Amino acid sequence: MLKITQLLVDLYGCEADLDDEGFLLDALERASEAVGSTIMRRITQRFSPVGVSVILILAETHLSVHTWPEHGYAAVDVFICGEEKDPNVAWGVIREALKPESFETKEITRTIGESRK
Amino acid sequence: MLKITQLLVDLYGCEADLDDEGFLLDALERASEAVGSTIMRRITQRFSPVGVSVILILAETHLSVHTWPEHGYAAVDVFICGEEKDPNVAWGVIREALKPESFETKEITRTIGESRK
Repeated sequence: MLKITQLLVDLYGCEADLDDEGFLLDALERASEAVGSTIMRRITQRFSPVGVSVILILAETHLSVHTWPEHGYAAVDVFICGEEKDPNVAWGVIREALKPESFETKEITRTIGESRK
Repeated sequence: MLKITQLLVDLYGCEADLDDEGFLLDALERASEAVGSTIMRRITQRFSPVGVSVILILAETHLSVHTWPEHGYAAVDVFICGEEKDPNVAWGVIREALKPESFETKEITRTIGESRK
């Protein structure tokens, strides 16, 4: 059994361009690198007229961002399974990139592994 | 501003074949359909020797499952933005498919939208 912390962050009033998928992908890749995780897949999806979803599938689960540029809002999930991987390191890189005016972080502890019968 | 509920569920002792990506994709598609959301992208990723990640990017954010078949364990995230979309409907379909012996659900409220300054 492995206890991990998943971070769910709501970012408000972002200064960064939330409609730029290349920029968002780069931010997530740098976040993944900072925490020492392995990227398996990179997925970007544009919405009309604006909005982007970027998801990295990691060897250690996933990193995702969904943006609503018209509201300056982004939803970030940092779900990294690995005993020595600190999700706050990844979140720090994303925060630096997206430059939110304010944000709300929720830390959730999950227990990964065998049945707990 | 929109308040939504995100579900994070840890499933233990699953009876279903957690190494079958076609089955997992089908379960997530049926969950998405049951809640009335729109699938934009389907991503499946196999791990060696076992394990699968499946993510659906929805018009309303995402549905994901990551499995550890060797432990009978799966991690499900139901993140669906939409005022009349009940994430418990999607979770019900996934629960029915994966047949966990036990599970632990965490409900997180997120506020999507404008800056809350």
